[in-house]
Order: sequence, then C-alpha cells, then structure tokens
Amino acid sequence: MRTSKGVEWAVHALINLAWLQEAPVATAQLAAGHDLPPSYLNKVLQQLVRAGILESLPGARGGFRLARPLETVSMLDVVVAIEGDEPLFRCAEIRQCGTIGERFPDSSFTRPCSVKSAMGRAEAAWRKALAEQSVADVQAAFAANTPNAGKRVRRALGRG
Amino acid sequence: MRTSKGVEWAVHALINLAWLQEAPVATAQLAAGHDLPPSYLNKVLQQLVRAGILESLPGARGGFRLARPLETVSMLDVVVAIEGDEPLFRCAEIRQCGTIGERFPDSSFTRPCSVKSAMGRAEAAWRKALAEQSVADVQAAFAANTPNAGKRVRRALGRG
Repeated sequence: MRTSKGVEWAVHALINLAWLQEAPVATAQLAAGHDLPPSYLNKVLQQLVRAGILESLPGARGGFRLARPLETVSMLDVVVAIEGDEPLFRCAEIRQCGTIGERFPDSSFTRPCSVKSAMGRAEAAWRKALAEQSVADVQAAFAANTPNAGKRVRRALGRG
Repeated sequence: MRTSKGVEWAVHALINLAWLQEAPVATAQLAAGHDLPPSYLNKVLQQLVRAGILESLPGARGGFRLARPLETVSMLDVVVAIEGDEPLFRCAEIRQCGTIGERFPDSSFTRPCSVKSAMGRAEAAWRKALAEQSVADVQAAFAANTPNAGKRVRRALGRG
C-alpha cells in the first residue's frame, strides 16, 4: 500500500513550472530536469491537466504551464489528480457473507460497517492534513533549503 | 493506492475470536464464517501471529486464538501486521537527479525533501487516528448495530 511515484514527480514538476512562471515547458525538458522517463512523466502531466492544475499549449513552442497559482493547489488536489479519488480502504462487506453473515438480521447492515468507519476516520485525517498544505507551501519549504533555488531551476531548464 | 482485503479480514477474524473467548478456532471455520478463501485467510492469520496479536495452537483441536485482549490491539497494529510498516509515500529523491539536481549544492539535500515532509505529515495524522482506535472499540461499534452479536457469532461457528 503506497502512493505511486507520480505524486513526487507531479509536485516537483509543478514547483519547477512555478519558477518558470508563464513560459510553457516541453515534457522532454521537464523530464531531463530530474532525469525521469518522458513518456511516463507526460502521463502524469496530462493527469494534472485533466484536474485543471496545468494547461497544455500546442505547437512547437508549446508545452505545459500552470493553470492557476500554486497557493490554490493543495497536496490533496495533486494526490487525487494522480491516484484518483478512491478511498484507501475499500470495504468488501464480508460482514454480510458466510455462516456468520447469515445469522445477522438485515437491520445489522443498514449502518456502515464499523471496520469501514474506523478506517474512514483515519483516512479523513490524512486527507485533511493533505488539504491543509498547498503546493506553494511545499515550494517555499523547498526554497528555504537552497539559496536561489528558482534561478537554478530556470538555468537548468535553459531559461536563466 | 489502497489497503489490501487482508485488513478487513483480519479485523473481522479478531472480533469473531474475541466473541469465542479462549477456544481456538480452525482457519476453515473462521473462513466459512465470512465465506473467505481459507488459504489466503490463513496467510492473514499467520501475519497476526507474527505480530503477537494471535496465537496458533497445534493439533486436531488447535487453531487460532487471541494472544491478548483487543483493548490492547490498535487498528494501526492490525494495518502494520498486514500491510507492513513501509510509509505510504516513498520518496525517490528525484530532486537530486537530472539537470536541476546538478545545479543544486549538496547542502540543499541535507534536510528531508519538502515533498516527503508534506506527505509525511499527512501520514502521521493517518497513523495517529488508527493508533487511537482499538479493535475492541470497533467490536463495540459492531455489537451496537446488532442485538446479541456475540451469541450469533458463537452459534455460527458451532460454539453456541
């Protein structure tokens, strides 16, 4: 049980695009920035477009750019864009099956299973903590570790 | 990204064993209780033994029983027993790679990546919420949905 690599890739791509401001960047260049496989990174970037976080611009000078400021994009938005919005815990309702399930009246099953509820409370705490952190917060923490982080990124992507 | 079926199976097995008290129960019987595949359920039960939550008793009248009261077993204990203790988010340190990574001084990388830290804060909230709920709490909530839940389970497993 773990998040795919796509979440890490997506957040770094967003931060790098924020440092490039308006200029669209091609997938190949973003991929080279962190030595990632371009075809899979492109899939991740398309997921961010579908979520309304990135825009894709066609043409020779096209590429990806932010669709909105990173202050308005939470870490939850990114995780949902990449991983989907399915719950971490999916209940198969085994409580209703088998020799035990048969002995329980239907009225037992009108309320959610208590296993599902317990797992759901934990998941709500996880989602809340993700929703409370914007990608701009993560970018600021990233910048705090490195002098001139934005300038370095712009130079690395040939925009310095 | 989701938990395996094993967590749901494990929690229901623990609750059923709690209702049977001291008597060991064979895998086949526990599996029939919720119409589960016995060989895979057995794997889950062995994981709970390794975590010190269940005991396995050998012999014709053997089987599984609780190693300790469910008040002392948190939902986090069960999730870790079944899913392992790896973080949900694993950082591949792509920040250090590629044309961007090359432009960052080594001193940038002495502190954890801010993406990892942000994901880690959410995961800590998830783990905390799981740790705060015992399997006994879940059993009590389960019992609250059904009159005589324990008696029904004992009868279904031939111990009534």
